[in-house]
Amino acid sequence: MVRITNTRFLFNEIPAGFPEDKTFKYDTSQTIDLENDPLNGGVLLKVLLLSADPYNRVQMRPADVEGYSPPFIVGQPLFTYGVGKVIRSEKEGFKAGDIVYSILYHAEYFVFNDHPFPMMVLKPEPGLHYSAYLGAGGMPGQTAYYGWKEYANAKAGETVFVSGGAGPVGSLVIQLAKQDGLKVIASAGSNEKVQFLKDVGADVAFNYKTESTADILKKEGPLHVYWDNVGGTTLDLAIENAAIHARFIECGAISQYNSKDGVNMKNLDQIYALRIILYGFLFADLAPKWEEDFYAVVPKKLASGEFKYTEDMTRGLENAGKAILEVQVGKNKGKKVIVVADN
Amino acid sequence: MVRITNTRFLFNEIPAGFPEDKTFKYDTSQTIDLENDPLNGGVLLKVLLLSADPYNRVQMRPADVEGYSPPFIVGQPLFTYGVGKVIRSEKEGFKAGDIVYSILYHAEYFVFNDHPFPMMVLKPEPGLHYSAYLGAGGMPGQTAYYGWKEYANAKAGETVFVSGGAGPVGSLVIQLAKQDGLKVIASAGSNEKVQFLKDVGADVAFNYKTESTADILKKEGPLHVYWDNVGGTTLDLAIENAAIHARFIECGAISQYNSKDGVNMKNLDQIYALRIILYGFLFADLAPKWEEDFYAVVPKKLASGEFKYTEDMTRGLENAGKAILEVQVGKNKGKKVIVVADN
Repeated sequence: MVRITNTRFLFNEIPAGFPEDKTFKYDTSQTIDLENDPLNGGVLLKVLLLSADPYNRVQMRPADVEGYSPPFIVGQPLFTYGVGKVIRSEKEGFKAGDIVYSILYHAEYFVFNDHPFPMMVLKPEPGLHYSAYLGAGGMPGQTAYYGWKEYANAKAGETVFVSGGAGPVGSLVIQLAKQDGLKVIASAGSNEKVQFLKDVGADVAFNYKTESTADILKKEGPLHVYWDNVGGTTLDLAIENAAIHARFIECGAISQYNSKDGVNMKNLDQIYALRIILYGFLFADLAPKWEEDFYAVVPKKLASGEFKYTEDMTRGLENAGKAILEVQVGKNKGKKVIVVADN
Repeated sequence: MVRITNTRFLFNEIPAGFPEDKTFKYDTSQTIDLENDPLNGGVLLKVLLLSADPYNRVQMRPADVEGYSPPFIVGQPLFTYGVGKVIRSEKEGFKAGDIVYSILYHAEYFVFNDHPFPMMVLKPEPGLHYSAYLGAGGMPGQTAYYGWKEYANAKAGETVFVSGGAGPVGSLVIQLAKQDGLKVIASAGSNEKVQFLKDVGADVAFNYKTESTADILKKEGPLHVYWDNVGGTTLDLAIENAAIHARFIECGAISQYNSKDGVNMKNLDQIYALRIILYGFLFADLAPKWEEDFYAVVPKKLASGEFKYTEDMTRGLENAGKAILEVQVGKNKGKKVIVVADN
């Protein structure tokens, strides 16, 4: 009977704007007996890696406000995509030593039992670290792959603009678009990220903080496809520079998550005038159609280097809040992964 | 050799906001010899009826600015949908006495020759006046019918909101939606129009100038379909009150045509969160698929009274500018038709 501390990272307070220190609470009050605590038919997991993603901000809301992703609960651990290791299992299909992918609690350990999310055992592609399954090989990559396949209706020679191009979604979209023979315009918020946009194949890559999105779209457009990760004024400019019958893939709106101010839009009437279709989507809706294809194709290409990706590791569960904030302000340098334990 | 005056209604000046008196010019300087002027293979038309539609404002722009509808040319007659009578013809398929539907110049007479628009001979449904072919039986009705059939994906029991519901597009949309078993919320800008919304079957009808669109949508939503004729803040409220997987049919934006100010939008990030699809469309793109069906179905139902419509006649070509302005500010009481000649 050895009880050890089970550190956790809790949601402490709903932020008004960007998350702050007081938004979270690092907690060391819980203990666990890894060998003897009851599983009640579940699985005891050791958390190895956790993901920080833009949509996490949407989870920081009152629990009674509806939304597409379940809200964090004040006083309870955060939960985000992650990779864990099975310590003990009473559940069919899982055995000690298995590496699993699911939405995991921000804790060193927890019992996966009445957990409301599905869990899959990872069989990683040789040469591919588990962490890739949180980025281009996981939810963000699925978002890119499903949305592009379903909605882009891409034709060689067309032009696509990808905002937020350096993230795990945007950078895979760029590579899928290049595969399909499109001219790719991509934006990001630092010169280092712009270099990554070029590395993954963008034909026109720019730093939206130092260059004019309006000027570049005017010069390099019109846009047959717009992959929107940011929303806001950039969406307005993309509409202004859209081609007739353009497809807009509305994937995210990071520019809006931390503010309640609206955005002044001048070109919305061009949606009908140019016959633009805007597809709002979430990857989960498209999973039944595309998931099998995704796992057959993408991890192999990530392992072989045909698809490029970058990662930015933050070590220590106590730094999860810092990692999440970096993603909200765009300071991460690649897919943000929180390393809770190495193995 | 009798030369008579051929009065015309010219575009005089591009307006900054709403069209004014000086935007147009009633011209009596041209003469015509109805019996002897050369046709050069064309058709001499007497203009009977002209249509005033919201999109006319989009035509009042510099001639070198692209747009989905051809611009009016300063110093030349306006051209809008209309009904005319063939006086003389050198063109196959048209003979004296035929009643035709096309985009016509704002003139008492003109020779339809190198005219860039197609012209069709009307075979009106018994009991249906020609004027109906400018409203529910013409371009506006086609807009409603094509857009609804193509994009609404309507299921009985769902809820649709139709803004600008009292116009020829909106009022047919309401009736198509009721046919499909939907609950219909509809808005218009006067109490008289609200009565018409009820007459055509709207379950919830309101005057957006005196009632709160936000409150009504909150109470009566969520919206599975939104038919957008107005754009602006109403679109923002519809997004806020959309159901998951809602279909937004982006047909027009009358609230934006006469202003260059943008609109503050607070809910655009809900497009992806609720997985809304917004379909920008123009009827002409869908004509190859739906036109035959439209003419087989709609005129009959208009003639029988199964589909209701209203008309608001303005007499005299010299009043065309007044008629156009009424449509822009919403003072028309039904489909606005300019009566140039009775026969």
